[in-house]
Order: sequence, then structure tokens, then C-alpha cells
Amino acid sequence: MSDTPTTKSRTVMAAITFTPSGETIEVPRGTSLLDAAILCELDVPAPCAGQGRCGRCRVRVTSGEVERRSNAGMATAEILEGWAVACQTYAGAGSIEIDVPERMKEKVRPHGHAVAEPESLPITCDYMQNPAVKLFVLEIEPPSLADNTSDFDRLRRALSKQYGIDEIRAELPQLRRLGTALRHANWKVTVALEMRDWVYESYLPPRLLRVYPTAFPQASMGLAVDLGTTSVVAYLVDFTTGRVVDSASTYNKQIACGDDVISRIIYAKRKHGLERLQKLAVQSINELLDELQQRSGAEMREIHEVAIAGNTTMTHLLLGMEPRYLREEPYIPTVATAPKLIACELGLNANPVARVHVLPSVGAYVGGDITAGVISSGMYATDKLTLFIDIGTNGEMVLGNKDWLLSCACSAGPAFEGGGVRDGMRASPGAIEDVYVDDATWEPTFRTIDDAAAVGICGSGLIDLLGELFVSGLLDKSGHLDLEAPTARIRVRDGVPEYVVCRAGEGGAEKDIVLTESDISSLIRAKAAIYAGFEVLCTSVGVDLADVEQILIGGAFGQYLNVEKAIRIGLLPDQPVEKFHFLGNTSALGAFATLLCVNIRHEVIDVASKMTYLELSADNTFMDEYTSALFLPHTDLTGFPSVHAALAARATGNGNGG
Amino acid sequence: MSDTPTTKSRTVMAAITFTPSGETIEVPRGTSLLDAAILCELDVPAPCAGQGRCGRCRVRVTSGEVERRSNAGMATAEILEGWAVACQTYAGAGSIEIDVPERMKEKVRPHGHAVAEPESLPITCDYMQNPAVKLFVLEIEPPSLADNTSDFDRLRRALSKQYGIDEIRAELPQLRRLGTALRHANWKVTVALEMRDWVYESYLPPRLLRVYPTAFPQASMGLAVDLGTTSVVAYLVDFTTGRVVDSASTYNKQIACGDDVISRIIYAKRKHGLERLQKLAVQSINELLDELQQRSGAEMREIHEVAIAGNTTMTHLLLGMEPRYLREEPYIPTVATAPKLIACELGLNANPVARVHVLPSVGAYVGGDITAGVISSGMYATDKLTLFIDIGTNGEMVLGNKDWLLSCACSAGPAFEGGGVRDGMRASPGAIEDVYVDDATWEPTFRTIDDAAAVGICGSGLIDLLGELFVSGLLDKSGHLDLEAPTARIRVRDGVPEYVVCRAGEGGAEKDIVLTESDISSLIRAKAAIYAGFEVLCTSVGVDLADVEQILIGGAFGQYLNVEKAIRIGLLPDQPVEKFHFLGNTSALGAFATLLCVNIRHEVIDVASKMTYLELSADNTFMDEYTSALFLPHTDLTGFPSVHAALAARATGNGNGG
Repeated sequence: MSDTPTTKSRTVMAAITFTPSGETIEVPRGTSLLDAAILCELDVPAPCAGQGRCGRCRVRVTSGEVERRSNAGMATAEILEGWAVACQTYAGAGSIEIDVPERMKEKVRPHGHAVAEPESLPITCDYMQNPAVKLFVLEIEPPSLADNTSDFDRLRRALSKQYGIDEIRAELPQLRRLGTALRHANWKVTVALEMRDWVYESYLPPRLLRVYPTAFPQASMGLAVDLGTTSVVAYLVDFTTGRVVDSASTYNKQIACGDDVISRIIYAKRKHGLERLQKLAVQSINELLDELQQRSGAEMREIHEVAIAGNTTMTHLLLGMEPRYLREEPYIPTVATAPKLIACELGLNANPVARVHVLPSVGAYVGGDITAGVISSGMYATDKLTLFIDIGTNGEMVLGNKDWLLSCACSAGPAFEGGGVRDGMRASPGAIEDVYVDDATWEPTFRTIDDAAAVGICGSGLIDLLGELFVSGLLDKSGHLDLEAPTARIRVRDGVPEYVVCRAGEGGAEKDIVLTESDISSLIRAKAAIYAGFEVLCTSVGVDLADVEQILIGGAFGQYLNVEKAIRIGLLPDQPVEKFHFLGNTSALGAFATLLCVNIRHEVIDVASKMTYLELSADNTFMDEYTSALFLPHTDLTGFPSVHAALAARATGNGNGG
Repeated sequence: MSDTPTTKSRTVMAAITFTPSGETIEVPRGTSLLDAAILCELDVPAPCAGQGRCGRCRVRVTSGEVERRSNAGMATAEILEGWAVACQTYAGAGSIEIDVPERMKEKVRPHGHAVAEPESLPITCDYMQNPAVKLFVLEIEPPSLADNTSDFDRLRRALSKQYGIDEIRAELPQLRRLGTALRHANWKVTVALEMRDWVYESYLPPRLLRVYPTAFPQASMGLAVDLGTTSVVAYLVDFTTGRVVDSASTYNKQIACGDDVISRIIYAKRKHGLERLQKLAVQSINELLDELQQRSGAEMREIHEVAIAGNTTMTHLLLGMEPRYLREEPYIPTVATAPKLIACELGLNANPVARVHVLPSVGAYVGGDITAGVISSGMYATDKLTLFIDIGTNGEMVLGNKDWLLSCACSAGPAFEGGGVRDGMRASPGAIEDVYVDDATWEPTFRTIDDAAAVGICGSGLIDLLGELFVSGLLDKSGHLDLEAPTARIRVRDGVPEYVVCRAGEGGAEKDIVLTESDISSLIRAKAAIYAGFEVLCTSVGVDLADVEQILIGGAFGQYLNVEKAIRIGLLPDQPVEKFHFLGNTSALGAFATLLCVNIRHEVIDVASKMTYLELSADNTFMDEYTSALFLPHTDLTGFPSVHAALAARATGNGNGG
């Protein structure tokens, strides 16, 4: 409160009113309209974190004096109508009225997050032998004038007498309601205890989670969360059976503060920026809790433990820890393993004393989501030489087995998520996800998500299209389109060659959907960064990619990857298809394993601490490998025998059929 | 938020505006004006907790419809002016405007709290050998691309290397600023660690309290608090020297919600009542913190540990634990020993992760203040048979020595604090604190606090006056004034005899100040309850009051007690004056010892758990002893040889001089 600007200061002030919400705020002259909107907690999107690049934080100045430092390519007509880029427009003096257009609501949930079936969860731990949370039905001796032991000591005495549990711990939120709960229940209660809490080489006594005012067993749940940069997935787990009962997913509400981790780190530098990002992370999870509660009838207070896996930036933001040093060389996280936490410290709407396990990270760009993957894939316990990969904005990868683990992260950029590509988009309805290009007619055939009218191309579609254009001969190994090819699908616009995958009108599309040579260049750089990562990991330990016995693909994006087509462009190593395994949302699965299995809680910390982190920006071989990979599929075709064969076949086929 | 009344409900609503603050609130018809004012966090005093007895929650209804259920003896003229008792007046429908008179500010601080001098603190513990908090100057190796260990692990590594401390713990509030602190300090810092934290039979590793961004030792402080029902006292302690550097005291802000613990327990039943009481307890301490900070230049964040002693009700309210079962038979506290806490859980403005030690209680009416007394008096460690007493609204007492401890509490009522006595008042300027009655003329001589014009009589004055009237022969042993005595000082008003100790005009007094027979009756009941407590304790263990080797008087009130005069009325046992020792504010001293000495932290829990609590309402002998004590000084004069002798001397003297 003390740092909110007030009229007492001698600074010239502006009084901003936001319509239609009616929020008003006084700010010093020169405050950006975006900052003012954030102070009012208005939902103004800022995917580029207020750097003036994306132009999405548009608002309309309906009256008053503002200073525009940039109009970010806005049309003059729009400027005359008052439209302004909020992050680049600054308050003048006096009264200002700003209209905030209703935000284009995201109409869909994140598409196609495979929710693991209870039966299919690959976690093996003898849950019932060593449960995290246990319920105890208790008959407590009521107090009397002759026996005035306190309520808590009375509860302890009953636990000792009936179950041989001689000591328990409790925190304030549970003690506050203890007296009333015991009396309402007439001293016959069920208590939930967190049974095993390992700390500094010894177990602490069980911890009181809840007193149910009835003497028969009640629901006892846990929540496993994958806190992704883009989407958030939660599993509701029944602790009495060890089974997933429901799951839900949503977009990460932090998207309003930047699309990727770098933008969010920049956003966190704004006044109250980190605070807002922390709240938005929690709100995203709370929204899922709400949804799960409504469907299952479970109560928030019945959620007794929470496990959350996310990348290192997401973890820092969730915990409210300064993220800026993740982005500044030499890229250092504040902590690898989060401290012991309970739900009320973060604002999670679970049982206020629910333990929150945040999966530990390895480095600034190998986070808890990857530790989760190593755990849930079983890689940490296998003899086989394994490569685990999770491709998104960053390609994170781990090479190793039960004896050693080496990890790194390659910045692929947003291309595989549809970012920085003219008609790229996230995987939502209308996204072209699957393309085939006829190598005689060069006409495309494609499929869109939900069979909706095509709107753009998502990551898997981009990889498909790139591969198809390459093997059909329309694209050379340097990424140039064949302008001589006799097809109207290839054209030049504004000096840049492009391939039209869908013309306006086709299947209801409202505009041409194209892949330009500069898009292609982005995609090639992205795949080169990832492939170079594989090579550096292998080189570092003196093995060959061919020595790798299994390649495990985790992460949300991995689920939609077509291995053959990914090999074709040189994104994945050219290895037999049998070596590749898709594991689904390994981040969520790792959180689930941590939630359920007490032994996994130790494994996950052990695994994170023994994983070596290779910082590629400190590695000279990475740039060499990257440069070599900037071709389709690679400069060195001996590493890509199947692609080599396919190209040879086409050459022959073309020769025959041309 | 969800239980705030809204217009959506079908209940008839009232819209109340409070002037002059301008707060508005919508409440259902039938809500008391006091409850509405509390919801708006307005400062309306309610010493009787809204029971309609004290009439101090007066407000003025300036417009709108209200229902008055009682006017609590208000004059008709006042009612016509709109004055109403807020707790007995209920909102009707529609708009209502209520004027809240500015609260008569308490013009003085609690009077005369003896603040212990650093030199005089009777705590013996080898503080420097086993400090609670220690500072370490560290040079941390800056991170590099080749060594990307997290900030926290880097800090741990440096502590291990430079000081052999291999493991430390940290909580979220400290980690949130860690990255910035280390870099601003250029990796040369001073860290404060809580060194010794005993839990479940083993020590936990040191806990990170603060990272100072400079490489030389900084201030490191602690706060010891006596959280009394009426006043709050705090000592600021320098951990580097183990000395008290300053102290401050204030009224407990909860007084606005009731004068005594029973009223506050009743107040806590109101909507948001407990929440408000919790906040007011914390605000009272925060106000002292502010004052100490301003004077000492210390920063809030430098206060690394806090110890708080209070009675069981105060402890429950401070922690936000339901207090109602303390008042309902069989009088059970929620906990005896508070859970492990840090400052931010309560809202204390110290270092957010400062450990808060709340001194453990023994029973509903023998609290942490008494445990503190047993500790600070040294009683828990002595061979001597000791009686420790703390007289206030309740008389709490402990009998025993290092081998055993027996405690009880006797409800003395508020008489010794000036409550329920016509001209009784708290010990503040203008209170008659010292009286002498000439046994020939029956004229009084008195002294007031600060030599101000007499306003009323405080506890020590009441005891003096009662004793003087008794030994001067104006009062008989049953508490009746001698209406035949030839003095105008004794008169009858409204059928009740009274003694006029100060006439209007004498020394600037604005009104007659009297002691009535019904006041005398209250005082006799109060002293009888306390004396009966002594007898019951002794009887329970088969010793005689004469066997007691020392009588230690603690508590705020004890400091002003005149032992001889207290013996004269039968409040204290008739034992040689040498046996009595005044210890000052033993509650604050016990908190100080707990704060400073790690071994005392264990002793205090040990002492509380081994102290036996005798519930007097379950004890038949108490009523017998009480009845016997309802005379001046007692029915059994053999227990009061010195008083017996004085009375005999007067009889003789009167005979001679009359």
C-alpha cells in the first residue's frame, strides 16, 4: 500500500478511469497505460510482456492526454479512433478515460491433453503398503473437571491408545477449528494424518491434516499438477484407492503476461508483476480445483496433498521467487529443491495445511517437469541407455540410465508451438495438424483439429508440411522453395517465396494459409538446435546416437509428433521406429507418482541432485553441431540412412515418372 | 467473502452509512449496529462484549429505521437526540445513517510498568555459549556457466566450507529475496541463522533468518512480550549481547471488545469477532514494535525471534483459536503448547520468518504468563517450598519446588482492578493508590498517581482503604461500616452506607469519591477467593501455609501491593514480611528468558507439562475455605497473629485514648 502513488507527492498526477469496468486509479504522469491497468488488476493481454512488439495490449483512449511513444504498426484510422498500444502509451496529466475492449476469450480448452487412464498409469509403487495419507477413526474420551487435558493432547492420547501413534504434529489452521470439530462430533471423529515426512535423515511424526466430525472414513484426496507455460493439467487422486478419479486442464492464466518463459521473466520486472504472475499461477490451479470439485463432489478441504511439476521458471513464479537470474548469464535458479510448503502459503484452495511438493529442478532450463519425466519414464531405474526428450519452446533432453544422467536444454524458439510463423498457431480447433503433399501434383491434403475450417498450422502440421515439401522435392536441403516447380501453390509475396497449403475458401478457410521461406528458416533453426542437443549429450559421454537403446518422448507436444516425419526433417535421430516410445504428459505423470508414492518423493530429489546439467551456451561443440544441423535433414546424410534412401527413391521415381 | 450479506439474498436489507468515516455496508434487517460497525472495522468500544450491560457502545442514529431492544438506562433526552446502544439496536430496512462519536482516547499509557533494567534481569543462562541466533560473514563463490549450482545450494556450500555447517533450512519469504540479496552484495554477505531448534528428540539443522547484503556483522534482535488482558509490554533484546536495549508498553487494543477475558470470549462468538480479536492482539504488539523501532533505529526485519507470554485466553485469541471452550465447563484449552510458528503466520511485523515462541499453558486459567512466572522466579529449580502468586482479575497461584508444582486459579472478579467498585479505576493518573485513615479522627490522607486531582481508587488504594477502615474500627469483620461513628465521612446514600475518602473540591476532585458497603463486599469476596486458593493448594499436598519458605509475588498488580495492608485484610497469609518477594512483571521476564536461552525453551515446556492444575470448581474444600475467608481478616484469627495483635492494640489504645 505504501508504494501506491498518492496525491501527496509533488509529482504531476493523472486520474485514469477504465471503462467499462469503472476502475479508477491515480498514477504519476509517465506511467504506462499497461502498468495502470495491471495496478487495477484488469485483464489486458501482454504476450510480449510490454515490450511493444506484439501490439496485443490495445486499448482505446476515449478522453484525456496521453503520450504515444510507439504505435507498433497500427493504421492511422485506428489511431484516429483512439486505439493505442497500452505498453507504449503513457499517461499525461489530468483525467484520462481508457476503454478496455473485452478480451477475445479463448474459446477452447487446451486441445487434446491425453489424460492418463487410472489403469494405464505406469507408476509402480506399493501404495497401500506405505500411504502418504491415512485415516483413523477415533473415540476420544470427553473432558471432565477431573481430566482437563487440552483438546490436542486428548486427540494425541486417543491416537496413541487406539493406534500406537505416540506423537503427532499440527499447524495453526487445523488447531483453530479443532475444539469445535471435536465437540460437534461428540468426540467421535475421523482424522487424516500425513504419515511419512522425511526430514534431515529421520522421519518426523505424522502431521494432522484434518479432523472429520464423523466416526467413519471420509474422502481423502490428492492433486497432481503439470504447471506448463501454456497449459495446466490436474489429476484428482483418491488416496484411499491410489487411483485417479478425474482430471482437468486449462490454459495457464499467465499467458496474459507473456506467451513464453522469457516474456514472463520480463513481465515480472514490472511493478507488482511477479506478484501478479504468482497469483495467476495459483488461480490457474484453483480453477481446475473448482472444476474437479464440481464434478466429483469432493471438497477442497479433502485435498490433503498436492504435487506440482513445472519448468524452472514456472516453479519460481509459482513460489514468488525472483526469476530474473534465470535469464541472465550464467542462468542460476534461486533453489533447485523448493522448501517445505503448505497450501495456504501459496493461496491454493486445497486443505490449508496440505503439503505441496514442488518437483525439484536441475538447472535454469531443466526443471521439475523434466525431473518428473525421468521419474515417470522409469529412466532413472533402467539399465538401458536412454534418451528422454521433451520438445516445446525449449527442447529439454536427458541421456543416461540408472547410473548416470546428463541433461541439457536447447532453445528451439516458439516455432514448434506455432510462434514466429506467419500462419502458425497453437493446437486448437482449425489448426492444420497433418499434411500430405502429392509429389506429382504438389497439391496438399490436410486434416484440421476437430475438422474445423482451417485457421492456421500447429506444430505437428508444420513438421509434416516441412517434411512433405522436402521429400516431394519442392524444398531443397537449405530450405529454399523451388520457384521453378510447375505449381501455383508456390508464389512470391513481398519478395518472400511461400507455399500455399490452403487457399481462402477451401473448406471454409477465411484466408490463404501459407508457409513462407522465413517460416521454414525458423523451423530449420528450431530442429537444428534440438538435434545439436542430442549430439552434444552423446559426444560429452563418448557414445553414439546409434548406441541409444530407447528414445522416450514426453511432454504435451510429443504426443502429436509423427516420428517418421520428424526424422525426415532431421528433428529426431534416424533410428529404428521401435526405439521410440511416446509417454504422454510425463510432467503430470511424475507429479502423480510423487503425490502417491512416498519412496518416489525421495527418488525425485535424489534424481534431480544426481542429474548433471550441461549449459550449452558454455559448450563450444554445440555451435558446431548446430551449424551442421541447419540443413534438411543434416549436412551429414550418413546419420540419416532412411531419409537418404527416401530421397534416392524419389530421385529415381521422379526420373522414371517425370 | 462468501458469507458477506449481498443483495442477491431474499432477506430484507438495510444500507448503513457510518459518519464521519463514510463507511457503508449492506446488512440483513435485524443486524445489530455493533455487528455492522465491526464489519466495517470501526472502533466502537464494547467492554461488555455487546451484552448490553455497559452502555459504552453508544452511537447516534441520525436517520433511518432501527429497532431498539434496550436503551440500557439512557436518558429520554438522549434517546430523542438519537443516541442508541449499538449492541442493543438493530437495523430496520432501507437507508440508515449512524454517527460514531470519536472514541474517548485513552490519554495515558498503562501506568508504572516497571521495566526491568538490563542489569537486573535475574535470568542465568550462559547465553553466549548457546545463542539462539548467530551471524556468519560469508564469501560466496559467484556462479559461472561452468558452475551453475543454485543460489541456495551455493550459500549452503559456503557455510559448510567456512563454518562447517553442513545443512541449513529456509522458508519461502527468505528465498524470495535471496537471489537479489546475494547479487546486490556481490556475493559477500552476512547471514543470520537460528541455531538450535529442538524437535521430536533431535535438533533440526539451522534455519535461515536473513541475508544481509554486507560482509560485516549486523544488528540481530529479539522481542519478549507480555500479552496481558489489559496491557502489553515488550522488551527489545540485542542477540549479539543478550541485553535488553529498550522496552515499551501499551494497552491491549482488545479492550475495545471487552475489559476482561470472559467478555472477550463472549465477543469472539460474534461474526468476525475472533478474527478481530486476533488482529487487535497483533496490532497491539505491532504498535510496540513500531515504537521500539523508531527509538532504537532497529529494523523490523532484524527481529529474528519473538517470545510471547499471556494467559490462556490471550494465547488462544493471539493464535486465532476458538476460545469458547475455556469458558464452558469443564474449561478445556485447544492446546497447551502452541505449534511451531513464524511471524508472518500471525501478521507480526518482525522478520517474516522469525520464530514465535508462545509460552505454554497449564490449564484454561493457568496460562503461559504463569509458566513464565514459574520460570523467571526460579521456583522450578529451587529446593525451597515456594508459593508463587499473580493477582489480577484471577488470582493464579503455584505451590511447589523443583520436584513438584501444583497450580490453581481463583476468580477474584475485577474488584482489585477497580472493576465493579463504584469509584474503582485502573492504575492511571488521579487514582488514589495509598490511603491512611487516622484512627482518632477517621479523616483520610491519600496519595494519587502522578499527584493528579483524585478521580477514583485503584486496586492498591482499595486494599489500603479497606485495611485502614478495618484497623481503625470503622469497619467490622463482616464488612459493615460503623454508622454510629462520630464522623461525617460515613453516610448512607440510596440506602447503602459508604465512606467518603475524598470530597468534591478536595485537591481538585470533581466529585465525591467513596467506598460503599457493596464495594466492600466485592473486595472481601475477591480476597476470600484468593486466600481460599492458598489454603486449598496447601491442604491438597498436606502442608501448612506456615511451612511455605518463600512467597513470590509476580504480575503487574503485585508490584503495588503493600504486603502488610494485604495481610491485614486477609488477602495474603500472615507470614513474616521477609518471606515475601516482589518479582515485577514475571510474565515479561519469563518471555525474555525463553527468548534468550535455548535451554529455557525446553524447561518452559517441561515445567508446563509437569505442573498439576487443580480445577477449583471441582474441589469441595474450596467453597468451605472461601466461606471461612469471607471475614476480615478471616474467621480463624489464629492464622493471622499479627492482625490479631494489631486489633488488640487498637482496642487497648482506643480504651486508653477514647
